[in-house]
Amino acid sequence: MSAGPALRVRAEHPCFGGVMGFYEHDSAEIGLPMRFGLYRPPQAARRPVPAVLCLAGLTCTEETFAIKAGAQRVAAELGLALVFPDTSPRGAGVPGEAEAWDFGVGAGFYLDATTPAWAPRYRMHRHVHHELRGLVEAAFPVNGRWSALGHSMGGHGALVLALRHPGAYAMASAFAPICAPSACPWGEKAFTGYLGPDRAAWAAWDACALLRSAGRALLPPIRVDQGLADPFLAAGQLQPEALEAACAAVGQPLEVHRHAGYDHGYWFVQSFVEAHLRAHAGVLG
Amino acid sequence: MSAGPALRVRAEHPCFGGVMGFYEHDSAEIGLPMRFGLYRPPQAARRPVPAVLCLAGLTCTEETFAIKAGAQRVAAELGLALVFPDTSPRGAGVPGEAEAWDFGVGAGFYLDATTPAWAPRYRMHRHVHHELRGLVEAAFPVNGRWSALGHSMGGHGALVLALRHPGAYAMASAFAPICAPSACPWGEKAFTGYLGPDRAAWAAWDACALLRSAGRALLPPIRVDQGLADPFLAAGQLQPEALEAACAAVGQPLEVHRHAGYDHGYWFVQSFVEAHLRAHAGVLG
Repeated sequence: MSAGPALRVRAEHPCFGGVMGFYEHDSAEIGLPMRFGLYRPPQAARRPVPAVLCLAGLTCTEETFAIKAGAQRVAAELGLALVFPDTSPRGAGVPGEAEAWDFGVGAGFYLDATTPAWAPRYRMHRHVHHELRGLVEAAFPVNGRWSALGHSMGGHGALVLALRHPGAYAMASAFAPICAPSACPWGEKAFTGYLGPDRAAWAAWDACALLRSAGRALLPPIRVDQGLADPFLAAGQLQPEALEAACAAVGQPLEVHRHAGYDHGYWFVQSFVEAHLRAHAGVLG
Repeated sequence: MSAGPALRVRAEHPCFGGVMGFYEHDSAEIGLPMRFGLYRPPQAARRPVPAVLCLAGLTCTEETFAIKAGAQRVAAELGLALVFPDTSPRGAGVPGEAEAWDFGVGAGFYLDATTPAWAPRYRMHRHVHHELRGLVEAAFPVNGRWSALGHSMGGHGALVLALRHPGAYAMASAFAPICAPSACPWGEKAFTGYLGPDRAAWAAWDACALLRSAGRALLPPIRVDQGLADPFLAAGQLQPEALEAACAAVGQPLEVHRHAGYDHGYWFVQSFVEAHLRAHAGVLG
């Protein structure tokens, strides 16, 4: 463990020749202790390696993607570090923050809130992009090359992170992402709460809107996998067709792989995580 | 889903081209509803396949090994069904059954209890070996070829199951098994409670004793993987050296793979599950 004094080690476990660790630090961005997971592949014992942010979905913690996606085996082969942030602040004390599973605790949407109740603590974008990356680069053998992937809310988080900072993420991919949060129930609820009712302010946190306002391709080909028996697809929460339209409008390369029968959970994610990580490794070098 | 009327489907999820299912049935052996998981590999859509019992350890449920061990990917490649029993009856109502994490609920030790309080319901050996195998063979496309593996308490369960019924299990392997339950704190507590204080009765449920009383090899090479930083190894709960001695005494082939740094959990199990399943596939044909 090479973590500096800012990090507290909660647990470290050898795994596929590398180390799966869980850590906590006092987040200056959020003003609370925050936890994350980090997998160091065996190659990291000899040289710095690229890092892939793995962003989980609604209700998850920093453990969920790490435990359920089966990504470490592939990362160990490819020499990729994996970084697993939490999905929201914990213990912020915002009234009502734990009353819904799709807003507040476990549902930070990887954005920086601006409404008075949420703005002081719900700053997951700054936490992940500005703070956690720096913390990881200071404490672990990573080489400064990053990419992002995620599931559901985290899939959209990965897309937005890379589209807002295209130089900072070599690639983005997603499993069953919320593609158009400004136009689906989950997103409308979250954006109204975190950003207020003015939809103009939502565009900066909506992958489709970011692409359309850029007016050009921002990233290497985006990969999306989507199960066709996913109940949230039928409910209109995911809308991959909206991402396809936005990408087509601006010439952003996109591969959407649709899978008959697959649903929304990690049984689906683990089935295709190897293909994603191989694509990331190809771009990360 | 080909499950007959005796089975209730709790959930089925496509996974690596096969189906990860969770089921419930009214167990005649136990007299209560029992749950199990079953993974059908893609090959099972075309022909019956062999099945590997995957037995979990203390505190686990039928979900734990299925979620955390990463076995489905390998099973999908090799054409193996995986069967994940629960680790004890649930709701038996034995006084005190839920007061300890290492005895009672979640800690059935895959044996048939004989003490008055536990004998009526704690019959995990009969449930798994006699009932669940038959139920699975009646409801799913398996070909009647079985093997067993497991973790910790379940590792010992796999060894005992195969040693008691060597014709019925083509192979047994284990991750960090309790090798000598008659001579370790976990086992002494469980055997005293389930079987009574007469140690002579324990031999029928102790892998080392079963081998020594057989006086000969009973199985193809047994594979055991053990992490050397496993705190339960240092605490004397596991004792792979006792299994080595028993196997050596009777000529039972045994491979113990010791791994520096690895601990007791599923970060360890998932790192070596592929090697186990490949060995099972080789024997199961």
